[in-house]
Amino acid sequence: MARLLKGKIVADALMEENRKTVAELKEKGLCPTLAIFRIGEKDSDLSYEKGINKKAEEAGIRLVKYVFDEDVPTEEFYSKLDQANKDPGIHGILVFRPLPDRFNDDELRNMIDPSKDVDGCNDLSLAGIFINKNLGFAPCTAQSVIEILNYYKIDPKGKNVVVLGRSLVIGKPVSMMLSNLNATVTICHSRTRDVEKIAAKADILICATGMMESVNRNYVNENQTVIDVGISWNENKNKLCGDVLFEEVEPLVKDITPVPGGVGSLTSCILISHVIESCKRSA
Amino acid sequence: MARLLKGKIVADALMEENRKTVAELKEKGLCPTLAIFRIGEKDSDLSYEKGINKKAEEAGIRLVKYVFDEDVPTEEFYSKLDQANKDPGIHGILVFRPLPDRFNDDELRNMIDPSKDVDGCNDLSLAGIFINKNLGFAPCTAQSVIEILNYYKIDPKGKNVVVLGRSLVIGKPVSMMLSNLNATVTICHSRTRDVEKIAAKADILICATGMMESVNRNYVNENQTVIDVGISWNENKNKLCGDVLFEEVEPLVKDITPVPGGVGSLTSCILISHVIESCKRSA
Repeated sequence: MARLLKGKIVADALMEENRKTVAELKEKGLCPTLAIFRIGEKDSDLSYEKGINKKAEEAGIRLVKYVFDEDVPTEEFYSKLDQANKDPGIHGILVFRPLPDRFNDDELRNMIDPSKDVDGCNDLSLAGIFINKNLGFAPCTAQSVIEILNYYKIDPKGKNVVVLGRSLVIGKPVSMMLSNLNATVTICHSRTRDVEKIAAKADILICATGMMESVNRNYVNENQTVIDVGISWNENKNKLCGDVLFEEVEPLVKDITPVPGGVGSLTSCILISHVIESCKRSA
Repeated sequence: MARLLKGKIVADALMEENRKTVAELKEKGLCPTLAIFRIGEKDSDLSYEKGINKKAEEAGIRLVKYVFDEDVPTEEFYSKLDQANKDPGIHGILVFRPLPDRFNDDELRNMIDPSKDVDGCNDLSLAGIFINKNLGFAPCTAQSVIEILNYYKIDPKGKNVVVLGRSLVIGKPVSMMLSNLNATVTICHSRTRDVEKIAAKADILICATGMMESVNRNYVNENQTVIDVGISWNENKNKLCGDVLFEEVEPLVKDITPVPGGVGSLTSCILISHVIESCKRSA
């Protein structure tokens, strides 16, 4: 039986920190503020927003919502975004992406002021991770992986870490962050040969391909920590599943994050932490 | 006996390309131009400059030199740099670093317009490599490694590549570039455990720690391609040496770059290629 690396307890600890810091900032007359940009009423957006609402309220930070109709002209959207960039009272900006097709995602990501890019999506934020320099913020999911390891005292220093997936949202940034923490990182992807053999030698295995239940017994070893970043709806099992075939892998490894209840439990807390950090930096 | 991956033949092929492209650009009335910024008369700077002079002449590109006394005020230096940034007739800017201590290297690197950053030293250039997007240019040494593999038809796709070293000049960018080319990349560094064992399993081993002759027989295998990025002066042997203990390793591997005469033979050609590419992009 593996130790379950549950996310909630990590989130609770982070939120405790967040509340304290917000109280301190408020004493100085500062109120960390997040601006949310949403177009339309997509279920996934509304569900994420609900989570953020709750955490924002818990932490005592302020939310400003910019909500637009599906047919909002791009100029109008960009002009509001520009306003939020310039507003010294706003410390973080989150745009629910993907936006409708008429928006150029690359242009949009880079319109957000890096110092307010609390979900770490623009080029300079990503550059900061590569360079190991505070240019913006890390993508929240990548940061969540680091926070879980940190909370459970699994020090990546000197460990062999295998990352499955090289996306800009998680695989690449988490690889760099772990290398910066002195892990020896191997980045695997769809073209990797013998991926099972490589993965099975890892001390820490980060699963971030988005391929549901693809990581099975062949990828793991009994001393391994498995961090499952995936989250997909399994039609057959009628429940959320990760990239790991949990019931097969869990008995074979040392530590594993559950899905749901693992990495995903942290992302909105991390977002809030970034808003608070941005407010501190701006003070 | 390993195949020697000599740099000169690769450089010659690149220069042939460069000459053709410059001729085409000149027919359109464009002349690729590189601005060099140098403070003082350091031997290493002068030697690199001499190499660039020769290659620039061969390719038919124009050089503009900004040479300053050791005691140039920082404002004067920055103001000239700003001028070069804004001058549409200048396509590439190379600053011989490190500058004297009163200059902030980080600030300096990022003052160069990314579109003219032909040695890939500023944050956005590095971000471009991480994101796999043409924001600036790759560091010339990292690009040299890729060109050598390419010339000798050693396709990194699906190969296990081990990179020794994680510097921003070579280790990190070359890791990302090779991952973008579909290699499975492991980034090793001073904190890596069992580095010899990890290296010995690589199909391609990139040696970029700067630790002279540190890579010995324990790091290699008979099917391995070894790329040696190091270049140090060996006092005992009274000659230039790489990171690889050449006489021991060479008989044991499939391919190896010599030092000198390997990676280092390409860097000034790559610099010229970047200036030409920048001129093409600006047209």
